Amino acid sequence: MFPVRLPSIWKRFTSTIISRTPPPKAHHHAAIPDSVFPAGYVVTGLHCGIKKNPEQLDLALIQSISPQPAAAAACFTRNAFKAAPVVVSEAVLRRGDGRVRAIVINSGCANAVTGKQGTEDAWAMVRATDALDEEHAGDGATVVMSTGVIGQTLPIAKVLAGIQSQALSTPTRNLGSTFEAWERAARAFMTTDTFPKLRARNFIVGGREYHMAGMDKGAGMIHPDMGPPRVASTPAGSPSPSSPSSSSPAGQLHATLLGCILTDAPVSPRSLQSALTYAVDRSFNSISVDGDMSTNDTIIALANGAAAADAHEIDEEHNRGEYEAFRDELTAFAAELAQLVVRDGEGATKFVTVSVEGAATYADAHNVASRISTSALVKTALYGEDANWGRILAATGSVPLSVPLDPARVTVSFVPADGSAPLPLLVNGEPENVDEVRAKEIVSAEDLQIKVELGLGFEAAKYWTCDLSYEYVRINGDYRS
Amino acid sequence: MFPVRLPSIWKRFTSTIISRTPPPKAHHHAAIPDSVFPAGYVVTGLHCGIKKNPEQLDLALIQSISPQPAAAAACFTRNAFKAAPVVVSEAVLRRGDGRVRAIVINSGCANAVTGKQGTEDAWAMVRATDALDEEHAGDGATVVMSTGVIGQTLPIAKVLAGIQSQALSTPTRNLGSTFEAWERAARAFMTTDTFPKLRARNFIVGGREYHMAGMDKGAGMIHPDMGPPRVASTPAGSPSPSSPSSSSPAGQLHATLLGCILTDAPVSPRSLQSALTYAVDRSFNSISVDGDMSTNDTIIALANGAAAADAHEIDEEHNRGEYEAFRDELTAFAAELAQLVVRDGEGATKFVTVSVEGAATYADAHNVASRISTSALVKTALYGEDANWGRILAATGSVPLSVPLDPARVTVSFVPADGSAPLPLLVNGEPENVDEVRAKEIVSAEDLQIKVELGLGFEAAKYWTCDLSYEYVRINGDYRS
Repeated sequence: MFPVRLPSIWKRFTSTIISRTPPPKAHHHAAIPDSVFPAGYVVTGLHCGIKKNPEQLDLALIQSISPQPAAAAACFTRNAFKAAPVVVSEAVLRRGDGRVRAIVINSGCANAVTGKQGTEDAWAMVRATDALDEEHAGDGATVVMSTGVIGQTLPIAKVLAGIQSQALSTPTRNLGSTFEAWERAARAFMTTDTFPKLRARNFIVGGREYHMAGMDKGAGMIHPDMGPPRVASTPAGSPSPSSPSSSSPAGQLHATLLGCILTDAPVSPRSLQSALTYAVDRSFNSISVDGDMSTNDTIIALANGAAAADAHEIDEEHNRGEYEAFRDELTAFAAELAQLVVRDGEGATKFVTVSVEGAATYADAHNVASRISTSALVKTALYGEDANWGRILAATGSVPLSVPLDPARVTVSFVPADGSAPLPLLVNGEPENVDEVRAKEIVSAEDLQIKVELGLGFEAAKYWTCDLSYEYVRINGDYRS
Repeated sequence: MFPVRLPSIWKRFTSTIISRTPPPKAHHHAAIPDSVFPAGYVVTGLHCGIKKNPEQLDLALIQSISPQPAAAAACFTRNAFKAAPVVVSEAVLRRGDGRVRAIVINSGCANAVTGKQGTEDAWAMVRATDALDEEHAGDGATVVMSTGVIGQTLPIAKVLAGIQSQALSTPTRNLGSTFEAWERAARAFMTTDTFPKLRARNFIVGGREYHMAGMDKGAGMIHPDMGPPRVASTPAGSPSPSSPSSSSPAGQLHATLLGCILTDAPVSPRSLQSALTYAVDRSFNSISVDGDMSTNDTIIALANGAAAADAHEIDEEHNRGEYEAFRDELTAFAAELAQLVVRDGEGATKFVTVSVEGAATYADAHNVASRISTSALVKTALYGEDANWGRILAATGSVPLSVPLDPARVTVSFVPADGSAPLPLLVNGEPENVDEVRAKEIVSAEDLQIKVELGLGFEAAKYWTCDLSYEYVRINGDYRS
């Protein structure tokens, strides 16, 4: 009756589909010499039976074997639905002296929305791992992380048997300090990840050489916002994350971000927490795959001092210079680990650095970078390899800032990853006559930087994000395990 | 070297693709009896030459022809990059007595990021439309809206000639008050819209019958946040949205939300603004297609009193009851218009109402509903027809609230649109043993409601959103005009 013209967009997408698939990513994992790993840690990864496929590792253990327990620090998701391992690890760190001896991680089950049983299971993992170190066994010397299916309880007997297989007297024990052992641990973190995420490096603070190793996992539900352990107990009225749940309905795979950083430098627990909070804000809290925050996001750092038993602890108050050197090493290392998650982002075909400069405050810069990094329109334009500054501008303008934005001071450029000249798209609010061939060349590369200068001050922040592809929709539109 | 198992997700998506295409939408447009349209308005839509295809209308005119000018109210985008028509309309409303005689709208060019020339062009459209009403011609009796390509200046001579074709003495004049005239106007709003969005209804306030008609447009870059005209001038240092830009680089189609609501009820300008601000917050500010806020979003309301020259004006202070009756009519009507935009959302195959109840404040409820409505994981699960409460929960928990969330009080259900029984997914924080067949049935319907009860108070808010499909990625990954 009313002749509505259907635009061509409603044609079934057949020949016109942009079917760029994610590039190969396996090369982001490579061997690391044993000597670069930190001293005083033994680690492993094993299959305890949470995952069906016996070739897929699902339990990682990290023990600090230096005489003194390691200083520990953590940043936990700010999501109100905190999974049981988050609640338990927070309690472990709160009740002790800020030092632990081990980390236990499982994949395949997130132990989230699992009620009282979930909390009990997480504590059981802590106690079983404590018991591996017969000499120092005591409540709360282990922190715990979980990732995988949500709403299902852990097969806790299998998990405990897996942990016990690493007891000193057990022939199955294979905790070790070689690259091969670290790689097993990193593999045991994986869920939808396509490669294990493992890095190690050495660094010098106060004239001494130290080492750090890190592992993390994550590919979807990635937009972390993590803070240090809460000083107080959980909010009134919510002593446990939910009411008991003995029966388990069909589970839903629940991606998340988990990571740990282990160093053999001596650092006081307080300063390790300050440094980690600073580092996480500039690394894991500055990445986005899809804008969705998980209930399990956790980053844990241990510093066991095994490289220098005679050295004084690095401490913010006693030697600010040493502390800052350590903090900056930790931040750069955390950024490297965080970026691996974006590289492996579900369906990602691009790795994009969003750099916001000239903000009045760091929070302003961070908020603008976050908004650009989560804009569906910016991310689909990147997938379409389209130098669409209009969408970057609209995203920038939608963020309330502490100082009102003046459009006439805003400059937007693309910065190629190959070191060639940046391409201004908008200068002081005025669109440039962009060389479209050059623009296409830049956006066709896998790596790319979007730089926005606000002209309002001297603060800056970086965010790392990926594009939004068909693959992302496919993976997450057909995801139930 | 390192055998990295690539999961099957990296296979090219061929046979496994979920290729559900958007359902037909043309039936959302249908004839309306002439008698339902408000008295005292003449309208038209025409092709002035902004769009290349001469069959595509690109200029709409709405004139109020009652003796007194109409009370006017507006809500404009809070984006810092306000397009020229937003800045000019805001100035028109600020400088006058809150009354105007006409609205002029063009599609095909957003007149955004067009510098001083853009502002001059928007003012020229205002003056040319003023001049159509020779008796009352004067600066600032017209408000203006634009949508289309960003970063290009208007072909202003064509636009002005189009406006002048509607002068009283001109044979081409076809301003009218029939459905056919209103439909032409609604069509002239369209850019990527697949059907014109036009509604009209009658309503009774204070025992008298009045009418309202509304038109809007939008399909992508839809996540409006609009507020009333700013009292002060634009922020210091930004007298115009950007510096002059005479040359136009390649344009980028820039979706936006535009709408107008015209009534023949008599309403004081102040109360029309209060009612519109309230209505927009609960309608246009409560929809999301992709979470991206545009630089041009504008909703304008006129009330010319033509239905009751003898009646007193509806006014908040003089008769609160009448005012609230009018405000609620306006809110319901605005919600209907806003929902049409979600129906026509780019690539949308689902129309989803997100209802958040039991919040401590309206803002809390609105923020949670907004977050769920923009979650890429919730939206891809909807596209995949997957009853994934875990993603709804994670999105809910990621919103900072004025009262801390207690997971043990949260209940999540699916409410079918056909009136059949709701399906609880999570009750007081505990996952239900969901009947998967029934769940699949509900999520397979085109319309669906997600209901979240927070258990923290008595405030509620609704949001309307759609799913995230391949079509969305295709449209926006290959979008440049």
